[in-house]
Amino acid sequence: MNAGTTDEVRAERECSRIEAFSDGVFAIAITLLVLDLVQIPPGAAGQNLIQVYLPHWERFLAFVVGFCTILVCWINHHHMFLYIRRFDSRLMWLNGFLLLLVTFAPFPTAILAQYINHSASGAVPTFGFGYFLMAFAYSCLWSYAYSHDLLVRDGDRDFFLAIRTTYRYASIYNLLAFFICFLSIPLAIVLYLLMFAVFAFPKEFATRLSRERAARKQGQELPRRE
Amino acid sequence: MNAGTTDEVRAERECSRIEAFSDGVFAIAITLLVLDLVQIPPGAAGQNLIQVYLPHWERFLAFVVGFCTILVCWINHHHMFLYIRRFDSRLMWLNGFLLLLVTFAPFPTAILAQYINHSASGAVPTFGFGYFLMAFAYSCLWSYAYSHDLLVRDGDRDFFLAIRTTYRYASIYNLLAFFICFLSIPLAIVLYLLMFAVFAFPKEFATRLSRERAARKQGQELPRRE
Amino acid sequence: MNAGTTDEVRAERECSRIEAFSDGVFAIAITLLVLDLVQIPPGAAGQNLIQVYLPHWERFLAFVVGFCTILVCWINHHHMFLYIRRFDSRLMWLNGFLLLLVTFAPFPTAILAQYINHSASGAVPTFGFGYFLMAFAYSCLWSYAYSHDLLVRDGDRDFFLAIRTTYRYASIYNLLAFFICFLSIPLAIVLYLLMFAVFAFPKEFATRLSRERAARKQGQELPRRE
Amino acid sequence: MNAGTTDEVRAERECSRIEAFSDGVFAIAITLLVLDLVQIPPGAAGQNLIQVYLPHWERFLAFVVGFCTILVCWINHHHMFLYIRRFDSRLMWLNGFLLLLVTFAPFPTAILAQYINHSASGAVPTFGFGYFLMAFAYSCLWSYAYSHDLLVRDGDRDFFLAIRTTYRYASIYNLLAFFICFLSIPLAIVLYLLMFAVFAFPKEFATRLSRERAARKQGQELPRRE
Repeated sequence: MNAGTTDEVRAERECSRIEAFSDGVFAIAITLLVLDLVQIPPGAAGQNLIQVYLPHWERFLAFVVGFCTILVCWINHHHMFLYIRRFDSRLMWLNGFLLLLVTFAPFPTAILAQYINHSASGAVPTFGFGYFLMAFAYSCLWSYAYSHDLLVRDGDRDFFLAIRTTYRYASIYNLLAFFICFLSIPLAIVLYLLMFAVFAFPKEFATRLSRERAARKQGQELPRRE
Repeated sequence: MNAGTTDEVRAERECSRIEAFSDGVFAIAITLLVLDLVQIPPGAAGQNLIQVYLPHWERFLAFVVGFCTILVCWINHHHMFLYIRRFDSRLMWLNGFLLLLVTFAPFPTAILAQYINHSASGAVPTFGFGYFLMAFAYSCLWSYAYSHDLLVRDGDRDFFLAIRTTYRYASIYNLLAFFICFLSIPLAIVLYLLMFAVFAFPKEFATRLSRERAARKQGQELPRRE
Repeated sequence: MNAGTTDEVRAERECSRIEAFSDGVFAIAITLLVLDLVQIPPGAAGQNLIQVYLPHWERFLAFVVGFCTILVCWINHHHMFLYIRRFDSRLMWLNGFLLLLVTFAPFPTAILAQYINHSASGAVPTFGFGYFLMAFAYSCLWSYAYSHDLLVRDGDRDFFLAIRTTYRYASIYNLLAFFICFLSIPLAIVLYLLMFAVFAFPKEFATRLSRERAARKQGQELPRRE
Repeated sequence: MNAGTTDEVRAERECSRIEAFSDGVFAIAITLLVLDLVQIPPGAAGQNLIQVYLPHWERFLAFVVGFCTILVCWINHHHMFLYIRRFDSRLMWLNGFLLLLVTFAPFPTAILAQYINHSASGAVPTFGFGYFLMAFAYSCLWSYAYSHDLLVRDGDRDFFLAIRTTYRYASIYNLLAFFICFLSIPLAIVLYLLMFAVFAFPKEFATRLSRERAARKQGQELPRRE
């Protein structure tokens, strides 16, 4: 009994440290984005600030897009780790792969700032490919934790299954959106905005999905009872 | 009963992680400010250090102003999150908006360093507009938490109401100060210093406000008793 | 009894803070690596992104190598600190030496990016020497904690001994690999990949080692019983 | 009784967050130092790495000096906050002033790297003045916490008094060393090395001091008894 408690304390501590390290990486990646703005060269004498900074609007846009991307990533990471409370070495490496993508995020953001004006057809798919890799990493992370019994034990399995479904479809959705980038940039942007709207609120989406599924199940069972 | 405890543990853990992420963002934004100082080009041979660095006094001033701005922000964030102990997705996004402003703070600081000498009429309103947005974000954050019952349950409601009033007036005050920037820079600076003096000690200010209100209430009630 | 509990609480808090500080250093060092990628100069008009970034492939390779190096370091740090739960000032300095090496890691990574193309014979030993210092620091850290009774008291001593053996051999292995860098770069790279494969999963490796040793011990004891 | 417990929980949480924020600032300041090394321009073709980097030895020295400075600061901060477990707004601002100095530390480190070769008479006093300010900030922080009853209540008052004495003398010592910088750089360096040796192990030093004082007290009391 006592040993069991110690193991739980250790597992809890392990999770806290992995979260703290991940939080650090997210926080730094999101804050480094401003360095691109700080490096805008100062204007000539007599120019007012709006004249100086308006021609660099794409850097500000990229800053906001990069910030939202990493924030949505963090929200989804946070959402998953409310339920992942045990760890093995492979899950740690899957989390490491995810952090690699987060660390890398300022790079496509810088590309977006440099190229959106001249060749959006290069910048948008770069971002899009990053999104696909992230969705795929999240999907792997959750599927692994789900199938290796690393989630909290008192949780609602239907809810967990709904989360798995969400991220699986998100991977496929992002792969499609990536290919659409080569057909039509505006359509791809609409698709990405839609995806943002869903993954900005991952908890609410998974809750609704699991409720709908539960309702459908009951709907299927009821006729059988008759 | 048991399930209730687990939910509380999870809410507590959720808050800790949001605080840890926010702390990371604050800590990095505040530390990145020094990069501007490190990049001052070295002086010619024979110059002493004071000759080299004195002409760059505005960078050192901007460093201190930027540091104090982010520190005051952190103190107010810390002050609020002593009482906000539950979370929903919308509050997380309000907090995200606040962090966007914090992450952005090194940018107006860099503008201050570059322009205060040549055109303070450009640099001060930029900072001022940032202050207004921050005050507005804090006000939204607290009002949302207050009205959606996300504060600690054993707290003093009068005190919480006093905090809400403080940040609401701060938003209006900052909007006015922003417009005054276009009339008189020195007056605007005096107004901002006054505001700093208050929000450097948000707890003390809210405590005094809630006591005064309580005293006034009792003063109104006493005549009725007669 | 009461005082004992307080001391334990304080030791636990001390460990948490040292971990938090170390996590911060690891997280920042790993995220700073991207700054090298962001500074790649933008391409001329008409070039597509692949034409622009392909000639800089060595920077991307260095980014991944640097990321994996720091991540493996963090995993091993995390692995050790699951069992190191008390601290004295000397252990704090050993940990400080380790963090110095981690902080330094972006420098050999930058060298790798600049030189791997022109003179791998310079870049690989630089990295290799860093690996040797890190393995040595880990070995000192664990040996010190082991011999000064700073590990958790309810732990498995055989397992702890296996960890000590692992890191001791790793120091020697890395020293040899460093000298092999001057004989044959490809052979050295193979040796480093092998080492990565082991220290990516330090827990599993030490567990297997301690089991094998236990099995051998029993094997030796059994004949004696006969 | 219950309210008392809640207040203690809140005070504990408050301390944890202040520590987490401070840890973040320390960790980033210490890691940013490497940026100066990464920016060393690559050598010409045909040069080996030692030829390229040896002329920049002062940057590596500055990196190690800066790292040790911030690490010693962190160790002393950690040492103090083991006993400071309550907070008021003024202590938070004293801590903020300390963090300002920590954030600023990469700047004198950069000066050291640029000037130690040409004019050590400029670089050493800059560092020295920073040390004096830090010692002064620590002294204020501890004195304030001591006299306003913000330390743990079950602690040894003699030990706390010994800590106060240590940091008070350190302030005076650093002020003297700063003036000696203008007389003799080598002597000043010896004085700073001595100080490092003490504050690398603040706990051990204060323990010894409080024991000596206790012994002297008893020595004074014993004759009286006779």
